[in-house]
Amino acid sequence: MSNRSKQITKKVGMPPGTILHVGLHRSEKAKIKMLCYRGDNWVENEFDQVNELIKQRDTEEICWIHISGIHVIDVIENIGATFHIHSLILEDIVNTNQRPKIEDNKEYLYIVIKMIHCYDNKKVEFEQLSLIVGHNYVLSFQENENDTFDQIRDRIKSTTGKIRTKGSDYLAYALLDCVVDHYYIALEYLGEKIETLEDKIMLDPKPQVLKEIHTLKNEMLFVRKAVWPLREIINALARGDSLLFKEDTLIYIRDVYDHMIQVIDTIEMYRDMVTGMLDIYLSNVSFKLNEVMKVLTIIATIFIPLTFIVGLYGMNFKYMPELEWEWGYPAILLIMAVISGCMIIFFRRKKWI
Amino acid sequence: MSNRSKQITKKVGMPPGTILHVGLHRSEKAKIKMLCYRGDNWVENEFDQVNELIKQRDTEEICWIHISGIHVIDVIENIGATFHIHSLILEDIVNTNQRPKIEDNKEYLYIVIKMIHCYDNKKVEFEQLSLIVGHNYVLSFQENENDTFDQIRDRIKSTTGKIRTKGSDYLAYALLDCVVDHYYIALEYLGEKIETLEDKIMLDPKPQVLKEIHTLKNEMLFVRKAVWPLREIINALARGDSLLFKEDTLIYIRDVYDHMIQVIDTIEMYRDMVTGMLDIYLSNVSFKLNEVMKVLTIIATIFIPLTFIVGLYGMNFKYMPELEWEWGYPAILLIMAVISGCMIIFFRRKKWI
Amino acid sequence: MSNRSKQITKKVGMPPGTILHVGLHRSEKAKIKMLCYRGDNWVENEFDQVNELIKQRDTEEICWIHISGIHVIDVIENIGATFHIHSLILEDIVNTNQRPKIEDNKEYLYIVIKMIHCYDNKKVEFEQLSLIVGHNYVLSFQENENDTFDQIRDRIKSTTGKIRTKGSDYLAYALLDCVVDHYYIALEYLGEKIETLEDKIMLDPKPQVLKEIHTLKNEMLFVRKAVWPLREIINALARGDSLLFKEDTLIYIRDVYDHMIQVIDTIEMYRDMVTGMLDIYLSNVSFKLNEVMKVLTIIATIFIPLTFIVGLYGMNFKYMPELEWEWGYPAILLIMAVISGCMIIFFRRKKWI
Amino acid sequence: MSNRSKQITKKVGMPPGTILHVGLHRSEKAKIKMLCYRGDNWVENEFDQVNELIKQRDTEEICWIHISGIHVIDVIENIGATFHIHSLILEDIVNTNQRPKIEDNKEYLYIVIKMIHCYDNKKVEFEQLSLIVGHNYVLSFQENENDTFDQIRDRIKSTTGKIRTKGSDYLAYALLDCVVDHYYIALEYLGEKIETLEDKIMLDPKPQVLKEIHTLKNEMLFVRKAVWPLREIINALARGDSLLFKEDTLIYIRDVYDHMIQVIDTIEMYRDMVTGMLDIYLSNVSFKLNEVMKVLTIIATIFIPLTFIVGLYGMNFKYMPELEWEWGYPAILLIMAVISGCMIIFFRRKKWI
Amino acid sequence: MSNRSKQITKKVGMPPGTILHVGLHRSEKAKIKMLCYRGDNWVENEFDQVNELIKQRDTEEICWIHISGIHVIDVIENIGATFHIHSLILEDIVNTNQRPKIEDNKEYLYIVIKMIHCYDNKKVEFEQLSLIVGHNYVLSFQENENDTFDQIRDRIKSTTGKIRTKGSDYLAYALLDCVVDHYYIALEYLGEKIETLEDKIMLDPKPQVLKEIHTLKNEMLFVRKAVWPLREIINALARGDSLLFKEDTLIYIRDVYDHMIQVIDTIEMYRDMVTGMLDIYLSNVSFKLNEVMKVLTIIATIFIPLTFIVGLYGMNFKYMPELEWEWGYPAILLIMAVISGCMIIFFRRKKWI
Repeated sequence: MSNRSKQITKKVGMPPGTILHVGLHRSEKAKIKMLCYRGDNWVENEFDQVNELIKQRDTEEICWIHISGIHVIDVIENIGATFHIHSLILEDIVNTNQRPKIEDNKEYLYIVIKMIHCYDNKKVEFEQLSLIVGHNYVLSFQENENDTFDQIRDRIKSTTGKIRTKGSDYLAYALLDCVVDHYYIALEYLGEKIETLEDKIMLDPKPQVLKEIHTLKNEMLFVRKAVWPLREIINALARGDSLLFKEDTLIYIRDVYDHMIQVIDTIEMYRDMVTGMLDIYLSNVSFKLNEVMKVLTIIATIFIPLTFIVGLYGMNFKYMPELEWEWGYPAILLIMAVISGCMIIFFRRKKWI
Repeated sequence: MSNRSKQITKKVGMPPGTILHVGLHRSEKAKIKMLCYRGDNWVENEFDQVNELIKQRDTEEICWIHISGIHVIDVIENIGATFHIHSLILEDIVNTNQRPKIEDNKEYLYIVIKMIHCYDNKKVEFEQLSLIVGHNYVLSFQENENDTFDQIRDRIKSTTGKIRTKGSDYLAYALLDCVVDHYYIALEYLGEKIETLEDKIMLDPKPQVLKEIHTLKNEMLFVRKAVWPLREIINALARGDSLLFKEDTLIYIRDVYDHMIQVIDTIEMYRDMVTGMLDIYLSNVSFKLNEVMKVLTIIATIFIPLTFIVGLYGMNFKYMPELEWEWGYPAILLIMAVISGCMIIFFRRKKWI
Repeated sequence: MSNRSKQITKKVGMPPGTILHVGLHRSEKAKIKMLCYRGDNWVENEFDQVNELIKQRDTEEICWIHISGIHVIDVIENIGATFHIHSLILEDIVNTNQRPKIEDNKEYLYIVIKMIHCYDNKKVEFEQLSLIVGHNYVLSFQENENDTFDQIRDRIKSTTGKIRTKGSDYLAYALLDCVVDHYYIALEYLGEKIETLEDKIMLDPKPQVLKEIHTLKNEMLFVRKAVWPLREIINALARGDSLLFKEDTLIYIRDVYDHMIQVIDTIEMYRDMVTGMLDIYLSNVSFKLNEVMKVLTIIATIFIPLTFIVGLYGMNFKYMPELEWEWGYPAILLIMAVISGCMIIFFRRKKWI
Repeated sequence: MSNRSKQITKKVGMPPGTILHVGLHRSEKAKIKMLCYRGDNWVENEFDQVNELIKQRDTEEICWIHISGIHVIDVIENIGATFHIHSLILEDIVNTNQRPKIEDNKEYLYIVIKMIHCYDNKKVEFEQLSLIVGHNYVLSFQENENDTFDQIRDRIKSTTGKIRTKGSDYLAYALLDCVVDHYYIALEYLGEKIETLEDKIMLDPKPQVLKEIHTLKNEMLFVRKAVWPLREIINALARGDSLLFKEDTLIYIRDVYDHMIQVIDTIEMYRDMVTGMLDIYLSNVSFKLNEVMKVLTIIATIFIPLTFIVGLYGMNFKYMPELEWEWGYPAILLIMAVISGCMIIFFRRKKWI
Repeated sequence: MSNRSKQITKKVGMPPGTILHVGLHRSEKAKIKMLCYRGDNWVENEFDQVNELIKQRDTEEICWIHISGIHVIDVIENIGATFHIHSLILEDIVNTNQRPKIEDNKEYLYIVIKMIHCYDNKKVEFEQLSLIVGHNYVLSFQENENDTFDQIRDRIKSTTGKIRTKGSDYLAYALLDCVVDHYYIALEYLGEKIETLEDKIMLDPKPQVLKEIHTLKNEMLFVRKAVWPLREIINALARGDSLLFKEDTLIYIRDVYDHMIQVIDTIEMYRDMVTGMLDIYLSNVSFKLNEVMKVLTIIATIFIPLTFIVGLYGMNFKYMPELEWEWGYPAILLIMAVISGCMIIFFRRKKWI
């Protein structure tokens, strides 16, 4: 958390449009994957730098250019120059602490969203994905070089999918849909964690569990912060605010919107459930205290009077007639048994035993 | 919860419009019940598959086609082809994790809602119902093959009901009304559970009760999540957004809307009451602890000084004049009685006894 | 609560417009009070059934027809037929679980509100009042036969009030105003209960008090649920949505609206206060526990070391030189006094005494 | 609180426009202060009753008529007759339980607000101020006869202030500004109380403090209830809804509006702070309990085993070899010292000491 | 807090437009820094008083006049006279308790915002910055004479920045951007404090930590109060409400707006996290109590019965056969060992050990 803000404070006072990478370096160098298609044809290329193929691409085709490794500033700047992208937007692309947002620049649409990864079901990780959707191209920017979008690449290359018959707006939809689908994996992970914690709470409520609840709650705060603004973005698309998105793509966008709402609903429900778990935890702790106290009270309450009695006859007074009686000892044993019995009946009544 | 999300994650990365069933299989095979009526006539049929009767139905009649067993994909696809339904909507019909929603497709209206069943007053169960309302037909899709809508079927067949004189919009209303009416049964079930728990809390607050409160709270969260979006759907209908719903049906829709508001109000009130129960539970637990501590304190506080005194005269010092006194023993007994009396008066004052 | 829902579930699956009474029977039979007036004249009648006098009333006069005993279905149906009231509205009139609402039917206005009675300051009770406001008549329906509206009747009959110079809208206002005025009595009752409980909490916090707080809280939930929707209703009237309410009546409606806002503000404030009481209760309970523990700790901490010392010199070792000393016993008494003194000083410092 | 509602219930069932004083009598008799000014001239008069001077005032001048003692109904009625004020508004003026509101009557503007007094920094007190702002007059009504507005009177009489060059809207602004300025005094009082309580909580958390927090919280609820609606009123004025307020006065009204927002912000912040104090109080109480328990546990845990050991060698068995050993007594003392040492080390580790 | 309100109450009753400094004096005397630029030229001057240079500045140039030391009223008044600024605005400039706001006066735009400083990472401090943005000038007012804006001054003077090619609106943007950038430093400070406290809570939950949480919470309340209104201000600018801000500057303003949203989101998230910390603190405290109680209970429960037994055989009855048995002592030792063993097994089962 403070790491992140430290990186931001590096930028304090810089003039606007300064393209400075903010975030972790997660890939060695930049990689550009370019996939152009129209009707039955498609061509795929991969470069390390912006080159002539990109600059002189066939404007009749739809081109998807995916850049990973956004910390390599000069690649980003070259792409920006090629596609006439505003320097403020380039600045946002390389600053990975953006809040998800959409900006309509007439020429192109700029969308920032957060991808959520759950590597090995250990931890939720966030990665910023920037999309530039133009009339006949889509640029996608991320830091990591992972395989999230391979499925979409395969669908484009395969003959069956209808993606090749559609425009750049449909490709942008496919990317958004893929990101939102991955949110369900994060939800699954959170849901399982809730179940595990619920069991732990009932069986063994110790501070460790509380800390896990706290961590889970904070994780949800972060997921929520990443997901919530997306609703507004996709809603703006679904309303047809942008001319780049054609009428027949909007129905797909609305489908993504429905998924978003469901994701948000589920997160809110999970938050309510986690809050409820905290109550149960606290109550279990105090119930256990109660039980401990009961045992102490029962033992102490039975034996303290008895100990007094035996102490009484341990006194060394010269004139204590009971001590001389032949049946004194058995009598005192009997009296103590009666006292214990009364105590136990009293506790039974109080429902402590 | 994680079950559900696991099933959803099966779908991650699939192209849109992939018709894949998500949910539990609750019926062996698909069953299609077709009931067509106009004025005085009605015909009822039942098939396993989409056949010519459906394809060549009389377009003058209102046809209600009820499909149970939505996991049988090819039936759904055939129905979709017959009624020209968009593949995204077919995808939603078989995916039983939809959030309740309404979609107006000009040709037809697509409505998803959740039915709530309370079998044997044991547990609340949810089932997705999809409605496609066309100009002269209503399609309804669910997984289970239960008798929820038999009453409506009977009303259509009987001579008295006016349903046969109305259009497909009135039939859709009747189905919605029936679903919302069943919500009251769920409310009744929840209301009874609240009453039972309130009694248990006052009589015997143990962690088991807390767990039941927690389960009830989560059940309410799920009911709320299922019911809440319906309000918006029925409101959209009541506003007359859709041309398929005629003016004189809207008054009935508004009636359903009033019921919805009442259901939601009641759920919100129940939630407040359950939250209040938690406070009472916790407070009762701490009050019991208090009582336990009082008993311990009273017993210990009275006997600890006495035990000290008897210990005092159990010492073996050679020169202890009191031990030689003839009235030493009775005197010490008297002193101890006085001390006990003072203690008891002190506790009375503190209102501990 | 479950009583209520049970009665509603009776209705599940019935066709709309089925006029079925839902609620408690609180009066033996139906009673119709008819009061017609114009300018200086007024006539009052009372029947058991709808008769010709009602059917052929003078349309130049304003007629107020008050029906008590809405469980007598045929009276309601006759009234409905006479005044051409929609069957759905008749259904709502006899179903006493309606949420307060307003419906504008062009011909007439249908208003449902909740009256709140506080018989003997014991409990808050709710009763549904339905109003049908037509061009020259007002129908009012309730189950009980009580004297709430006698004041209005008197004002109509007396020469001084201006009510006789006004139309049916002013009469409807007078009835609404009377109902809202009675809310203040409920507020007074709740306010007094809060004061009583505040005293009890400070003096003697026991679970009984907690239960009373809980009951009060639930009562407020019910009052709130009954009152809250009224705000919207009266606001709709005050905005002049309905043509039946003339311009010069609106100022009176706005007056009622102000009262409503005040009632709602007060209820919200009471809720905050009751929530605060719960905190105080819980804190008082834990403070008392604290006090109990302090007494125990002080007594135990002083005497446990002393008891150890006297036990020490109660040992039967052969070679214990102290036992032989002449001043052994006084010395040990002195040592114990010093220890006790130190303890007491320690507790003083800790501010436990 | 119940006092207030009792007074309101006096009015239940009365016809609208009944002018009945509701509230405390705080002044002996009514007093009318009339101050008329135009350009360089001003005249001030004081009466007990409405007289010809008021009725035949110069309509070219701005007249400010301040009435204190609103429980004197006939004065109010005379004023109402002179200025043609609607009876419902007169009713509101004398009913001191109004919620702050604004009503635009074309001829004049009616504003009700609450003044907050803090006499001697002891308690917050509320007083209702009603303003009637006409074209060339301002009527102000309050119960008390205090000196709140003397500053404005002085500014009118002095030559420097520009108030004499402005219209009745500016005078109304000056009065509102004066009332809002006094809210800061109440805020100061509340802020000081919060500081005092924060100190008390850290030093000595006893139930008395809790009660003070509770009282403070309730006081804030009342202040909030009085202040909150004012925001809407002044906003309505600032928007220029009323034609009586000229364009060049609106900038002053917006200034008051800014103050209002600040007052409300501060109250909300204070509420958050008081809620935080409650948490601290409760936590301090439980921390103190913890400390008490630690002392008890340390003392008891050290001495209970030792007491057992000394009891062991106090047994009167005939054959107990240790008792005969010459070094038995010192050995046992040593053993007990070792046990105590271990205990203390254990507690050190647990960080209890 | 009360300091602040005390200063405000000084102003109660003063006529509007009275220019009275409210706040701390933090600089000796006023200092005016004037920086005028156009295209390639720039001139910088520094005065103590308003002089001819300011009055006769070149209207073709953009002039940035920065005044520090707003407690020097006559400087402010002279500036006000030179630039024809309304007296109410001058009053707001010197009153440092303003809520952030924007006022559009056609001639110029008046903006008040709060700067947040974190000197030495010790404490958050607030300072009011007032901006007057005219057609060709920007006036900025603050009390302190610090170096916050030196970066902007450098960018103006350097040849590279494009700021010199832009108008006064861009300069205003640069100042706002600089202030918002400094908010990240405050966020970083708060984030680090949260991390530190989280560690402290897990390791050593004592009231001191609670107090720190409380302080942190209050600090966040103040930051939030300072930052929240800024959102509305920048939104108003971004919407293009003011004609002074040209179309091509709006994209920069929207950039600042995104930062604002992010700052607010982060503060809200921090608040949720701090609230979570409080729960953990309280729970840790009660867990520790639990642990303490367990140790006490285990020790007491094992030794109390044993102490009773040894007391039993310390009685001085004449006829106690066991005392005479040769193996009595070892037997009793064995019995006590068995009892202890049972106890320990019992505790193991209860999972107390």
